[in-house]
Amino acid sequence: MKKQPIGIFDSGVGGLTVFKEIRRAFPHEDIVYFGDTARVPYGPKSKSTVLEYSLQNARFLMHCGAKIIVIACNTSSSVALEYLRERLTIPVLGVIRPGSEDAVATTRNQRIGVIGTEGTIRSKAYPQAIEALLPRAEVYSQPCPLFVSLVEEGWDEHSVTRVVATEYLQPLLEQNIDTLVLGCTHYPILKKVLQKVVGSGVTLVDSALAVARQLHNELPMPQSDGVGKDIFYVSDNEDKFAAIASRILEQDITSLHRVILCESWFLA
Amino acid sequence: MKKQPIGIFDSGVGGLTVFKEIRRAFPHEDIVYFGDTARVPYGPKSKSTVLEYSLQNARFLMHCGAKIIVIACNTSSSVALEYLRERLTIPVLGVIRPGSEDAVATTRNQRIGVIGTEGTIRSKAYPQAIEALLPRAEVYSQPCPLFVSLVEEGWDEHSVTRVVATEYLQPLLEQNIDTLVLGCTHYPILKKVLQKVVGSGVTLVDSALAVARQLHNELPMPQSDGVGKDIFYVSDNEDKFAAIASRILEQDITSLHRVILCESWFLA
Repeated sequence: MKKQPIGIFDSGVGGLTVFKEIRRAFPHEDIVYFGDTARVPYGPKSKSTVLEYSLQNARFLMHCGAKIIVIACNTSSSVALEYLRERLTIPVLGVIRPGSEDAVATTRNQRIGVIGTEGTIRSKAYPQAIEALLPRAEVYSQPCPLFVSLVEEGWDEHSVTRVVATEYLQPLLEQNIDTLVLGCTHYPILKKVLQKVVGSGVTLVDSALAVARQLHNELPMPQSDGVGKDIFYVSDNEDKFAAIASRILEQDITSLHRVILCESWFLA
Repeated sequence: MKKQPIGIFDSGVGGLTVFKEIRRAFPHEDIVYFGDTARVPYGPKSKSTVLEYSLQNARFLMHCGAKIIVIACNTSSSVALEYLRERLTIPVLGVIRPGSEDAVATTRNQRIGVIGTEGTIRSKAYPQAIEALLPRAEVYSQPCPLFVSLVEEGWDEHSVTRVVATEYLQPLLEQNIDTLVLGCTHYPILKKVLQKVVGSGVTLVDSALAVARQLHNELPMPQSDGVGKDIFYVSDNEDKFAAIASRILEQDITSLHRVILCESWFLA
């Protein structure tokens, strides 16, 4: 029987932090990654648009033969996980539940902060998942829409980023949180600045590791030998993607293709 | 014969500054505005993607009966104007040429700064248009990718915006410019902060007025009576659009519709 890959999708390059942990944990698996770089960012988009794009992305990965789909994007995980599960014939994993499990395992005072895009925060997916695991938890949420642009601008250690981070995080710090969930795949790139702003008393939780761990329980037809292949697809800017990907993954990107949208308009 | 509207498209809400000037100058014309709010921003996208999206937008406006198309978006004007002119059977106007004419009419020392998105600056459309009009002009360009996010975050008078603006504009000020072209429809919203940063010796040029002026020369079948109708279409977030539009235009938005993309994937 033909070997089937793990499929991962994200709104752009951020999900490569998730790809990296999955690749490390599953050396024998083929992995297909799709980054929707033409339509990034998903954070400010409406729920119906994120549902639509997520389903298209997932269907493309199924067309590539995926045996399971990992939604690396937090915005998409927040609003589209159940929607995809109802519509697809293969298992689908998001990042919200694993990230929430890590947050609950980390906190000592049950006061947890969550930062993410507007879409992720508006969905309340993290507070719901955390409170389901730990009913006495107090969850404080804050959208940080400028962080994605600052990362994409390469200003991850810029003084402006520190000012913006201080403004966003101050309300969470006033709530005496001891754990902060980085609820967007772009945010781990700001870890250094964020840790400085929140101080050493707050632990940052990045869901990439937790997702790889959960995948162990759910992976169909696990492979136990051979070297897994990496295949990357993007919807725009393949050169920019290759440059960022080879830096994040510390490897050359050899199999990278662009997929194009064929679109027509109609009234909603 | 059926009355045909003026068609305007932009990547999102920014083009409403252009809509406003055209509405003021042409009270008897019907106007159809399309804002591609699902796929905003265009600035970081590749040329081929901007070409593709611009053609789709223009075709949608033609489907609405447009007799002329105004590209309000600077990124799209920079890269797609000729592409659309070659493919469409109606006239197409961009914002680059009118903005450049205003800059040339304004400068006294022939040293002109241009700010815009990455796509607009990379295209060199402004320097080429300005130097064609005034060969001895010196044009200095600077991409300002964070400005769009700051405007969308509503931080148009925030201290962070002033710090970012100072960082972006310093190299232009060192070139002793006396004129600065706001080469993105979002930037007029930052006029106050930008004027403070550049000082009173530098004149800001906003192309919306210049576009309305040029439209007088090119408009087919001009209408001389009746009250023109406004029709708005967006590809996402109609509520957010209506709120911003009614503030910018100082009028209620009564005719607003969402158009949805029907997409399928294929390899490039």
